[in-house]
Amino acid sequence: MMWGCVTDFFTYETTKSVVVKSWSVGIINRVVQLVIISYFVGWVFIHEKAYQVTENSVESSVMTKVKGFGYQNNYVMDVADYVIPQQGAAIFCILTKVIITENQFQGTCPEHSNKYSCDQDKDCLQHIGNILSNGVITGVCLNSTIGNETVGRCESEGWCPAENDDVEVKPMLNVINFTIFIKNSVRFPLFDVTRGNFLSTMSRDEIRKCNYHPVDSPFCPIFNVGDILNYTNQDLETLANKGGEIGINVQWKCNLDYDIENCVPRYSFTRLDKPFEKNAISNGYNFRFAKYYMTENGTEFRTLHKAYAIRFDVMVTGKAGKFDTIPTLINLVAAFTSVGLGTVLCDIILLNCLKGAEQYKAKKFEEVSDAQIEASLAHSPVSQLSLKGGIKSSYDSGAISLATSDQAM
Amino acid sequence: MMWGCVTDFFTYETTKSVVVKSWSVGIINRVVQLVIISYFVGWVFIHEKAYQVTENSVESSVMTKVKGFGYQNNYVMDVADYVIPQQGAAIFCILTKVIITENQFQGTCPEHSNKYSCDQDKDCLQHIGNILSNGVITGVCLNSTIGNETVGRCESEGWCPAENDDVEVKPMLNVINFTIFIKNSVRFPLFDVTRGNFLSTMSRDEIRKCNYHPVDSPFCPIFNVGDILNYTNQDLETLANKGGEIGINVQWKCNLDYDIENCVPRYSFTRLDKPFEKNAISNGYNFRFAKYYMTENGTEFRTLHKAYAIRFDVMVTGKAGKFDTIPTLINLVAAFTSVGLGTVLCDIILLNCLKGAEQYKAKKFEEVSDAQIEASLAHSPVSQLSLKGGIKSSYDSGAISLATSDQAM
Amino acid sequence: MMWGCVTDFFTYETTKSVVVKSWSVGIINRVVQLVIISYFVGWVFIHEKAYQVTENSVESSVMTKVKGFGYQNNYVMDVADYVIPQQGAAIFCILTKVIITENQFQGTCPEHSNKYSCDQDKDCLQHIGNILSNGVITGVCLNSTIGNETVGRCESEGWCPAENDDVEVKPMLNVINFTIFIKNSVRFPLFDVTRGNFLSTMSRDEIRKCNYHPVDSPFCPIFNVGDILNYTNQDLETLANKGGEIGINVQWKCNLDYDIENCVPRYSFTRLDKPFEKNAISNGYNFRFAKYYMTENGTEFRTLHKAYAIRFDVMVTGKAGKFDTIPTLINLVAAFTSVGLGTVLCDIILLNCLKGAEQYKAKKFEEVSDAQIEASLAHSPVSQLSLKGGIKSSYDSGAISLATSDQAM
Repeated sequence: MMWGCVTDFFTYETTKSVVVKSWSVGIINRVVQLVIISYFVGWVFIHEKAYQVTENSVESSVMTKVKGFGYQNNYVMDVADYVIPQQGAAIFCILTKVIITENQFQGTCPEHSNKYSCDQDKDCLQHIGNILSNGVITGVCLNSTIGNETVGRCESEGWCPAENDDVEVKPMLNVINFTIFIKNSVRFPLFDVTRGNFLSTMSRDEIRKCNYHPVDSPFCPIFNVGDILNYTNQDLETLANKGGEIGINVQWKCNLDYDIENCVPRYSFTRLDKPFEKNAISNGYNFRFAKYYMTENGTEFRTLHKAYAIRFDVMVTGKAGKFDTIPTLINLVAAFTSVGLGTVLCDIILLNCLKGAEQYKAKKFEEVSDAQIEASLAHSPVSQLSLKGGIKSSYDSGAISLATSDQAM
Repeated sequence: MMWGCVTDFFTYETTKSVVVKSWSVGIINRVVQLVIISYFVGWVFIHEKAYQVTENSVESSVMTKVKGFGYQNNYVMDVADYVIPQQGAAIFCILTKVIITENQFQGTCPEHSNKYSCDQDKDCLQHIGNILSNGVITGVCLNSTIGNETVGRCESEGWCPAENDDVEVKPMLNVINFTIFIKNSVRFPLFDVTRGNFLSTMSRDEIRKCNYHPVDSPFCPIFNVGDILNYTNQDLETLANKGGEIGINVQWKCNLDYDIENCVPRYSFTRLDKPFEKNAISNGYNFRFAKYYMTENGTEFRTLHKAYAIRFDVMVTGKAGKFDTIPTLINLVAAFTSVGLGTVLCDIILLNCLKGAEQYKAKKFEEVSDAQIEASLAHSPVSQLSLKGGIKSSYDSGAISLATSDQAM
Repeated sequence: MMWGCVTDFFTYETTKSVVVKSWSVGIINRVVQLVIISYFVGWVFIHEKAYQVTENSVESSVMTKVKGFGYQNNYVMDVADYVIPQQGAAIFCILTKVIITENQFQGTCPEHSNKYSCDQDKDCLQHIGNILSNGVITGVCLNSTIGNETVGRCESEGWCPAENDDVEVKPMLNVINFTIFIKNSVRFPLFDVTRGNFLSTMSRDEIRKCNYHPVDSPFCPIFNVGDILNYTNQDLETLANKGGEIGINVQWKCNLDYDIENCVPRYSFTRLDKPFEKNAISNGYNFRFAKYYMTENGTEFRTLHKAYAIRFDVMVTGKAGKFDTIPTLINLVAAFTSVGLGTVLCDIILLNCLKGAEQYKAKKFEEVSDAQIEASLAHSPVSQLSLKGGIKSSYDSGAISLATSDQAM
């Protein structure tokens, strides 16, 4: 009994197959299989590298350093003046035009823009609560001298005098000669691989003297701002005047099945505020900041800066792949099963479109119906035994009956 | 010989099947298949969009601009005063309460807090090395005048006088009227799709006047701080007093199989330091910064600011999907194979639970054992030939023998 | 007719199988299946958790706070002095060495470095356009007093006097006693799970007094800078002198099938600029910033700081997994199908390597060729009918013919 179970367990079950020796179906079958296999080998495995486990998230650290001198408002500006924030972050701004409002003290003063022109106090009531003014609108109309004219302007409370950002200021065009040094190290935590964006074989002088070029010098970490503007098709004067955002994308795409020295960055440059080109409001990039001073008697005053800047975003994206058994297996199984699915198509052709389809059906399908089974059960309980006996006996009868059964097949 | 190989190669092999004409198993089979197919069609394909390749990482660039005026310590504060950092970054703080310690010079002075009260020098020895004080504790006990009282306080070296952050300062409640303008452009590198967070059809004035509302104006990029506090159920006064972190989540969920104009952002707002609500220590958000001044004779002094702030984190997450053959194929194969797995269940029912199971078994399984094979090999070496001969001859005998074999089936 | 279709629809088709009662193949079959099943259960399901849907992207918010006092240039520096940026960001710098150039005014002055030494004006022409100088090289040679010597140096326009960064300044070694408090909250958007990096059960005092230790106190959010340097094997003096970047990785790896209280962070520390160790140029981390002052008569001047700093990057990575039907199903199907693929191997053994392979082939394969089909169609159109009739009649003849057919099998 127990032995029977063990014997039963160690049997091997394989499907019985019909082999159709037909040129038409045979060729269709092989062509379908070839198409499926080519797809999997060529696209899924070779092109899409489905045998690899991939990691898309990357730990990245970026340090930047800008060099260069520019003239602005008759000042020579250096890095400490025109780069904000100063600590060499991945996102930094180079100020290209600064509108300065000097010596602002807390107090009340007339607004500057003609949007706030008034004849009497009541003209100013509508502006109360306005957040686009230079200070809190008090609702009083004041006389203000703009140029040589005396005009009415609403009074505002805050830092005075009010900023006049309509003045024309020459932008700092020297920015095209500036250079940006980018130091980027990335780590793929899944594979514990750490890489830097320039080769450890480059000497100090090599790096100092090089200048990034997509073909000639693709691994040089020093970028010329003028070149970047060229790559992104930006006009220097417009950009310096209005400000803008430029993305420097450092793309790591590493196949770790190869030598790790091939895991190198690729740089690309885009104008980030491109989707807003047509929107007047967001055309450019500017922000305000202040420098604070104190008079001898301890009163604070400030210089307001409205700064138009080119903002550089160093964005690092990474993708690494390495052979792994799980995706390989799952895709291999999918491939094999897909090959098997080819028979579905061939079966349809074989059993419906070919001459002799009925004969093929007869060969492929064996029918058994409830009716038969019931009949066999009802007519004689003996028949059930003879049925099983039939199987057994056919084997027992040895070579001859086996030959018979094969003949029958 | 060679021709034989070619002929063999272009044969088609299909499994021999038993067709069971039984209502019970037939219905069970179709129901199981229906359940599996519905699951794949409804859930896997339609709901989970398994036919798409998806990209979860997104390149994003965020620019922010705050507008509004607030009163703090009798000053009118504007953007340059209360926003840190000033360059319109994705993470920015609006100072809501500032405790100012003016005119700090380097030197020694008594601590302020009564934690550092002392009668003699030795009371201060325990505090040496303390990093929560205002300066380096020297171990000396000084007399200090706080209010009208003279009390003993340990001496510390550093910026003097020491900060007293126990004072009550009225927070800048005007923050609820401030507006935040968010400019966000995203790019899905896999699909090379770039999108901005407001429609290019919006005019400058439309944008300036609009105010984000989840239903009425979901694409307006200008957010009222008061509204944001409402969405996150925050109490203005508590938040302005203690500071806090608010997340503005810009969520891009794009189905690129549809028109790209449907690829729009959805905003949501959360209190980020929620997990720490119950912890007293991290209740709120504050930091210290200083403004530096110089006296006429060149001595540096500073004003220390302990700033309580609401920090806004604009966090951009993106997910885009587009039809692709590889996931479609893998999931289709999984679906087809799963349908095939339905027969496993049906076979179990058919071969074990149904009346006539033994007959079905007899139809489905053909047995062949080692014993038989050995017997057939042992009895006569001829039989092996006759066996193969049997197959061939059955075909050679043409229509009649075929009819016989079919009859036998 | 219609009823026939319905009947046909509710038939059940199962493959006809050959059961081979052979110890050798049976054992091979089961061993192959066991290997495949163990692989899927052990590796794919238990180790790789293929039954879970995982999320790799995490929304994270980081707030940091540094405490401690250090001596630099005879000043006591506190947080407001040595942390940049001051607002407690995820990336912050602790200044460890500052080279100060005081009282710079706009003007012209000689360069300092001997790279710009000259005898006549023409020696300076080669330096025009140089961006590594202190200002814009004018092309004039000036006499400059360095120490007690009078030497020729090229004139530059900009902030004067020129910086001399060759001086030796003692770094602020007290940095090892500083502490960094990290508040990090993360959210897995897919599962809407929010977690903080310290337990809500920790009291204010417990947190204040604790100190992170990987074993003894793994959930304390306060890190000693000295400890961090130890974990990353950095030498304090070198690092403080040259600057550097240290990564604090907060890793969230959460199995959300378990209690959410098990979803805790793990901290690790790395030197981020490690890939550049061998490159002289990027050895360390420094940047320049300026503090601006104004004289009584309104002239701006500044103090230039060349700051060597340790930059800390708090990087948060997260991965959460939770049971989901889709990956479970796809992997189960892959598993089942893989088990089925085991028969491919066994078939090869059975039909080629075993004694009696020919007999097994004869049992497994039934052949039908074009020739036969054509013959049967050509000889008599009746045979086709008799063929179909044959099938039907074999069933109609009931138990006996069924027994015959089974015997034939």
